[in-house]
Amino acid sequence: MNHDAINLRDKLALFPEHWSPRVVAEMNDVQFKLAKLQGEFVWHAHADTDEVFIVIDGELAIEFRDGEVRLVAGEMFVVPKGVEHRPVATEECCVMLVEPRGVVNTGDAGGAYTAANDIWV
Amino acid sequence: MNHDAINLRDKLALFPEHWSPRVVAEMNDVQFKLAKLQGEFVWHAHADTDEVFIVIDGELAIEFRDGEVRLVAGEMFVVPKGVEHRPVATEECCVMLVEPRGVVNTGDAGGAYTAANDIWV
Repeated sequence: MNHDAINLRDKLALFPEHWSPRVVAEMNDVQFKLAKLQGEFVWHAHADTDEVFIVIDGELAIEFRDGEVRLVAGEMFVVPKGVEHRPVATEECCVMLVEPRGVVNTGDAGGAYTAANDIWV
Repeated sequence: MNHDAINLRDKLALFPEHWSPRVVAEMNDVQFKLAKLQGEFVWHAHADTDEVFIVIDGELAIEFRDGEVRLVAGEMFVVPKGVEHRPVATEECCVMLVEPRGVVNTGDAGGAYTAANDIWV
């Protein structure tokens, strides 16, 4: 059996792209993805699943139609399924996303920010 | 909708007990639990699910029958379902566990370390 720790900062150092989640681990059908965010993402929702954001470095705002949450390193938030949201990071922010395998980053919105899925780092 | 960030260190400050996981968030049927570990836990396995350990503070060894993994803050590991393991922390270690709702901390082993389940903090 593999006995290697997964070091989140080491994994983050392996890719520079923004808005391009990379899978680092799976638990059953749930994936743990690292992503670097900067700027304003697209408004979107995930119709079939909640989505977890855990901030590792930097600051992240998640805007909703009725408000927003602001997260710093060491904080997390669960976006309920079906809820429209827009991540915004003024400076580069590193996050871990937790969601079922197969979730597309832009949800129902599509468009230029849609990233390839299931890419491991 | 609730727009409050979940601050992991603030939540950890709310309970002192070792080996007593507290739920801080749910994504679909998956729970995110904080726990403080110190000493040697019991050998056990979870027959039906993988189990994720993410170290927030301190150092954790997870022993297996064929080796071990050592984790520091910012590192994670997925214990595959059915694999016997024993967490050991020489000094107090704070972790986030990610696993389906209903998983008991001692798995198939039972005994004095078995904690009440589904306790939120």
